[in-house]
Amino acid sequence: MAPVAITPESSGTTTPSTATASSLTQAGIKHMQANSNTGETANLAPLDASKMTTELTKSPRAVPEPMSDETKAQKTCTDHMVTAKWTVEQGWEAPEMKPYGPFSIMPSASVLHYATECFEGLKLYRGFDGRLRLFRISRNCARMRKSAARIALPDFDPKELEKLVIALCARDGAKWLPKERAGSFLYIRPTMIGTDSALGVQRPREALLYVIIACFPDMSQSLATPAPPALNGEPNGEKQHAPGLRLVASSEDTIRAWPGGFGYAKVGANYGPSLVAQGEARARGFDQVLWLFGDESYVTEAGASNFFVVLREKESGKLQLITAPLEERIILEGVTRASVLELAKERLTSAHDGIEAVEVVERRYTMTELIEAHKEGRFIEAFACGTAFFVAPIALIHFRGKNIEVPMDGDSGVYARVIKQWLFSIMYGKQSHEWGVVVEEQTE
Amino acid sequence: MAPVAITPESSGTTTPSTATASSLTQAGIKHMQANSNTGETANLAPLDASKMTTELTKSPRAVPEPMSDETKAQKTCTDHMVTAKWTVEQGWEAPEMKPYGPFSIMPSASVLHYATECFEGLKLYRGFDGRLRLFRISRNCARMRKSAARIALPDFDPKELEKLVIALCARDGAKWLPKERAGSFLYIRPTMIGTDSALGVQRPREALLYVIIACFPDMSQSLATPAPPALNGEPNGEKQHAPGLRLVASSEDTIRAWPGGFGYAKVGANYGPSLVAQGEARARGFDQVLWLFGDESYVTEAGASNFFVVLREKESGKLQLITAPLEERIILEGVTRASVLELAKERLTSAHDGIEAVEVVERRYTMTELIEAHKEGRFIEAFACGTAFFVAPIALIHFRGKNIEVPMDGDSGVYARVIKQWLFSIMYGKQSHEWGVVVEEQTE
Repeated sequence: MAPVAITPESSGTTTPSTATASSLTQAGIKHMQANSNTGETANLAPLDASKMTTELTKSPRAVPEPMSDETKAQKTCTDHMVTAKWTVEQGWEAPEMKPYGPFSIMPSASVLHYATECFEGLKLYRGFDGRLRLFRISRNCARMRKSAARIALPDFDPKELEKLVIALCARDGAKWLPKERAGSFLYIRPTMIGTDSALGVQRPREALLYVIIACFPDMSQSLATPAPPALNGEPNGEKQHAPGLRLVASSEDTIRAWPGGFGYAKVGANYGPSLVAQGEARARGFDQVLWLFGDESYVTEAGASNFFVVLREKESGKLQLITAPLEERIILEGVTRASVLELAKERLTSAHDGIEAVEVVERRYTMTELIEAHKEGRFIEAFACGTAFFVAPIALIHFRGKNIEVPMDGDSGVYARVIKQWLFSIMYGKQSHEWGVVVEEQTE
Repeated sequence: MAPVAITPESSGTTTPSTATASSLTQAGIKHMQANSNTGETANLAPLDASKMTTELTKSPRAVPEPMSDETKAQKTCTDHMVTAKWTVEQGWEAPEMKPYGPFSIMPSASVLHYATECFEGLKLYRGFDGRLRLFRISRNCARMRKSAARIALPDFDPKELEKLVIALCARDGAKWLPKERAGSFLYIRPTMIGTDSALGVQRPREALLYVIIACFPDMSQSLATPAPPALNGEPNGEKQHAPGLRLVASSEDTIRAWPGGFGYAKVGANYGPSLVAQGEARARGFDQVLWLFGDESYVTEAGASNFFVVLREKESGKLQLITAPLEERIILEGVTRASVLELAKERLTSAHDGIEAVEVVERRYTMTELIEAHKEGRFIEAFACGTAFFVAPIALIHFRGKNIEVPMDGDSGVYARVIKQWLFSIMYGKQSHEWGVVVEEQTE
């Protein structure tokens, strides 16, 4: 018998005009967002922070000391959380501010089987002027929308998520990040999970968006801290060593992300699969994995952070601040990454305060290039950056049996130090800047 | 200052002898399993089915009809589940058989953020001889151990998991898969999740292993069913069409797995990221995505199933049954896949019953090869296979704007039909075979 001939055009569904055979995932994302539950179509309720209900805790908990064992365990969250349920039939329900506590999740829930989950990480800072600040929160919320789309979770207006995060910070900030802790932070984790209890492999028809705030050990004032306890659960994690992270380059059997995959999205599927390599790196005495890609050993990320190098160009003799580009979608579009690039372009492209100017470049670069530069004295500095690690200087890269000792100027490279100081000043209100978003705290 | 030089040998930890710079993930897995919690080291309790406690439900539920809406919704599980907790300090606690119901999971739990989760899928069959059977369960349990290792979850003896699955089937089988439903099945889902509530990116220090049994719509007797409702949550999913699945080949922006990744493991991180492409495929009128890899468009899997083609060799004129190889670790080592290969080698390498002999081959093959074979009349047949889809004939492959109409012999290809029948006979006890493991059901 003759099978029915099918063409994309014959399906009669709302295929977006951008859908071509060469774009299954990206067309799917556009398709989803076009038909999404922003309330403009299908009479589904949009995410709406103004509808939030509030139930305050009757069992307020004690705030742990910043560097206590409880804080280091990273299991303590503040008194409240914000949740918002979504269903494919109704859209978003009214968000709820309520006491922090466990979720009731069915054993067959999508998130427990198919990794239908995405998250954000940002910090609430207690400034030296006594005020609470978020750092470029709109970027985190916009990225969360992208991550949700990539992992088949529902769409929302990032502005509304921003309001929910701010509301929770306003509620719990005064108590959990008191004014006497200037220079400290709390860690904010917006998350979305697929809660649909249908066991079939399909887009979740129910989801839960939530925001929690955790007490994390405070390392923000220490340039020298090499391996934040925040990321140390492995054998060698608590060891102290000389300043600067020590990285082991990933091997062929260990690739973090791939073009056509999802390395650009902050989805759980990028993290769990990296844990074995991370543990093995720690067991071998390194702090993190430097993730390479392809036969050419392109340098991509370090641990769960973006990665920068400063090299002196062979021909011109000029300095370049280099990081991997975003086009292939294998690199996370870090908020700190973007901020480093922007600050460097604004403040480092001409020499001042005794610091040589750098050209700021987003491009592919390889381990071969780093090794050659190192041999020729042109490898000036390297650092990782991200919300968790902040700006972390790199002291050593182990690649195929050899160590590359990255130059340091004391406890950091020069550029990492100055960029970190600039960011620190914005985050903690030493410098007034549009990136620092003040949160008006509730004090009743 | 001079950074400390670090070599792998200097870490002083129990790096396995197989650990080389070229093997970070695989060495890490061996490292983990060597130090694992099988009870042989570190005085940690091993997973031990003989310690299982039992608390029977006081609220037994009604069993839905096989093709009822309730069954199609795939949300109904049997009366009981088995759980076993693990902690890094103690190892495995005594497993518990208890009433099916929701878990209490902290919002900061590892599984909700980092996709520390893996699972298995197998079926409990009600044979035509009235007995309950599992199909090659030891393979599922062995694979679950591999998947757990890849996603940094704890090790266990697969034999113990097998006993837990059998105990649950024995408990709930008699009621939920009654003798009058010969030729029907239930779907069994062993799962492991990271329950550690520490928010840092690290190997979970607490985990939960559990087994649930779901009521799935019964398609096992229908060769013609093109798109199992089990996998249809998307717009066009409920449409009926001519026999045979219609596949759309994945585009460059959409790859399922890559070398150095985790495509071979049954971890959540392989599923969630595929849902957007799957939804887009459905919206365009196809049943599933045919996952290609690389510039050469190697054919890998179809949907969440393995994929087979029968081609006539150009030179020899002989038939080959071909599927993608396992070496690169981008293909799931399917139990049905292995069984198809073994049966074909045993029964199809010489002609009989009017069926031409085939050579059985595991090798890379490309879309170019399929297109050429199709043009020359040498593309004989294609089918997908897996536990959920069973053996599903393919009618059409859409690749870069063109349709390849795959030959069918009525509602299936000849080889898919005969292999499916053989497997069916073993699963449902029409043929006594070592692959069919009889479960003695409890009837009190």
